[in-house]
Amino acid sequence: MPSADLTRGRDLLAAGLADLGARALVIVANSGSDPDIAPFTRGAHLHDCFVLAQAGSAPRLGYISPMERGEAAEAGLDLLTPEALEVERLIQEGAEPARFWAEVLAKGLALAGLVPEPEADRLALAGHAPAGVIHAAAQDLGRRGWSFVSGNDLARRFRQEKTAEEIAEIRRAAAGTCAAFRRVADLLAHAVQRPNGDLDLEGDPLTVARLRREVARTLVEHGLEQPNGNIVAPGEEGAMPHSTGTPTRVLRSGVSLVVDLFPKGNLYADCTRTFCFGEPPPALAAAHAATLDALRYAHDAARPGVRGWALQEQTCAFLSARGYRTPISHPGTTEGYVHGLGHGVGFELHEFPSFRKHAGAEAVLRPGDVFTLEPGLYQVDEGWAVRLEDLVTLRADGLENLTPLPYELDPRAW
Amino acid sequence: MPSADLTRGRDLLAAGLADLGARALVIVANSGSDPDIAPFTRGAHLHDCFVLAQAGSAPRLGYISPMERGEAAEAGLDLLTPEALEVERLIQEGAEPARFWAEVLAKGLALAGLVPEPEADRLALAGHAPAGVIHAAAQDLGRRGWSFVSGNDLARRFRQEKTAEEIAEIRRAAAGTCAAFRRVADLLAHAVQRPNGDLDLEGDPLTVARLRREVARTLVEHGLEQPNGNIVAPGEEGAMPHSTGTPTRVLRSGVSLVVDLFPKGNLYADCTRTFCFGEPPPALAAAHAATLDALRYAHDAARPGVRGWALQEQTCAFLSARGYRTPISHPGTTEGYVHGLGHGVGFELHEFPSFRKHAGAEAVLRPGDVFTLEPGLYQVDEGWAVRLEDLVTLRADGLENLTPLPYELDPRAW
Repeated sequence: MPSADLTRGRDLLAAGLADLGARALVIVANSGSDPDIAPFTRGAHLHDCFVLAQAGSAPRLGYISPMERGEAAEAGLDLLTPEALEVERLIQEGAEPARFWAEVLAKGLALAGLVPEPEADRLALAGHAPAGVIHAAAQDLGRRGWSFVSGNDLARRFRQEKTAEEIAEIRRAAAGTCAAFRRVADLLAHAVQRPNGDLDLEGDPLTVARLRREVARTLVEHGLEQPNGNIVAPGEEGAMPHSTGTPTRVLRSGVSLVVDLFPKGNLYADCTRTFCFGEPPPALAAAHAATLDALRYAHDAARPGVRGWALQEQTCAFLSARGYRTPISHPGTTEGYVHGLGHGVGFELHEFPSFRKHAGAEAVLRPGDVFTLEPGLYQVDEGWAVRLEDLVTLRADGLENLTPLPYELDPRAW
Repeated sequence: MPSADLTRGRDLLAAGLADLGARALVIVANSGSDPDIAPFTRGAHLHDCFVLAQAGSAPRLGYISPMERGEAAEAGLDLLTPEALEVERLIQEGAEPARFWAEVLAKGLALAGLVPEPEADRLALAGHAPAGVIHAAAQDLGRRGWSFVSGNDLARRFRQEKTAEEIAEIRRAAAGTCAAFRRVADLLAHAVQRPNGDLDLEGDPLTVARLRREVARTLVEHGLEQPNGNIVAPGEEGAMPHSTGTPTRVLRSGVSLVVDLFPKGNLYADCTRTFCFGEPPPALAAAHAATLDALRYAHDAARPGVRGWALQEQTCAFLSARGYRTPISHPGTTEGYVHGLGHGVGFELHEFPSFRKHAGAEAVLRPGDVFTLEPGLYQVDEGWAVRLEDLVTLRADGLENLTPLPYELDPRAW
């Protein structure tokens, strides 16, 4: 990958640190692909590592294993080497994990010219780490004069606006995702209905597991994996939005099938379609039409400067007018429209922009954002669900759909 | 997956909490497959969740999204539901992440009958979480009377001895890994050497990327993915043990190729072989023979009750006697034998048992442990490397090799 873009987010970092009253962002990670650290390390193959980012100076990358010197150098940042961090001494002393991290971070901070002062003792802490270890390490650093606030949201803000290269990575993941959906549609279109309504494919019962296997094959051909699995959920299983679908279940005619894929290459993609082999029940057909209208409405309404929550409210109003329950008309509802309209996608499957009610600047859609739009309707008692989710990127001139797939329930219409 | 084995680790948990002076183990996670929480949740498809485990009572599983009720129920634990945890109220109040976690954990602790008392205010904190958020949440809970020590190592100890089902999962991952190695050997065996020493396959230059693609295909056919990537590292790239290999590089005759695969199904596997197409340079052939002898020695010496560090010392002595540098003879060496002999494998790629010098009971090999044995020799200046790594499980009657593959450099000997 090319060297790090050190200009992206620079002003945002300075403003965010000022807001937090913090002198630096300290990002700790057990992997160079940690979502908070990856925008700095460009996903370099590192194990334990950290980044120190201050306003007005180049970020520094600290790494722990001398064997990773080659990978660390590729990140293109100023390095804090294991030798400079005196890692070998700590290993020889048998420092337990919390003290190890505290010593390494204290040394790294000092090497970066950061020494705690009475009125300037605050750091913003980000990255992902073993909870007990990092809390104990932060307490240890507290005894050395530092105090901490959470910098995880600042790290998310830093990467909210995607670079052209990052959008290219997401586009690549979205293309592989689309190929997997076309494969699913093709298999469903070639299914044969048995007298009892079960579907066969090539003489065998067509199961959730079979579709999953074909999805995994297609994704891997595109260099994608599924660290969070996927959802291939028929009937009432799809109506519990995070139910993933029972592998052995045989698909049936006239029953909805929610397929939600969220694979990762260097970055994530995320897309959902709903299928129905054979004649859909009228309630499912109506819900599909309403969901599709809501999605098209959201596509039109998502423009720079709009708040995610405003889109959520509009979608709720739109679906309420069609007679469905929503989280606004019926807080906590488990039927009708039961979840949020979207979420940012990138280094994490769920990141900024936010579509939540209580959110700050990270809830305002901006050019460079990549996010989902995913209205859905659910009726567990009647055993059906429909969700249609596009992955989009916002540009100054409007929205680009990264998942331009058919929306039809009928796989033969694909 | 079957319901949780609530007896595994019960005594160990009680003893570990007593050692730490802690009333409960609090495991926080952003995913049900978090390595600390997965032995309790059996990998249930959950997002934010936590487990409270006390000595002498069944663990409780808290989850945040009402939509995940079906998945949470499958874990088979006593549930702390979003309703009981008053999640909706916190969302309506717009609680930021640290306060959200503090409130939810405080409520969960109270529901579990845990109230801080002056002489009994300590909890052991485990799981993996956004560092800034969890530190701020723990500080908030500190103001409510709780104090924390790190419970991450206790969570690792809890899962060190694998259940029969977990070993079956690792065995399945190891079988897929072996299939991928056989595929690599087969491709290499069919390569054709060009006059300049480069290798062709089916008329195209045989690159690192081509081998990676075939590895990924084979692994996905076995239901495995590579969340941490892999190492396919020719020549001097293999001599920097964590260098992953340049995708566009064309393989060459007479040059070593280190292939280290560490894929994950429900649990991880880990295996390394080193290949050389054509005649190996004498130094590489000698290093391969010494490494294989060291591996066989380690296989014989790894018995219940032996310390991992004792094996490391013996391996160093063994390779020193062959004239190679080791971390004991030459601390910090980057040539010769430069790393540890092994590590536990399971829910994480690196877990207990430990082979480190400064380690406690987790460094003593026991029946039920699953770990690697991986001697290697490296000479970056001469541009070669060799590492041979088996994944093994220890039983009362000895070692079982889960990766019974050939060790030959020559792919045609496979």
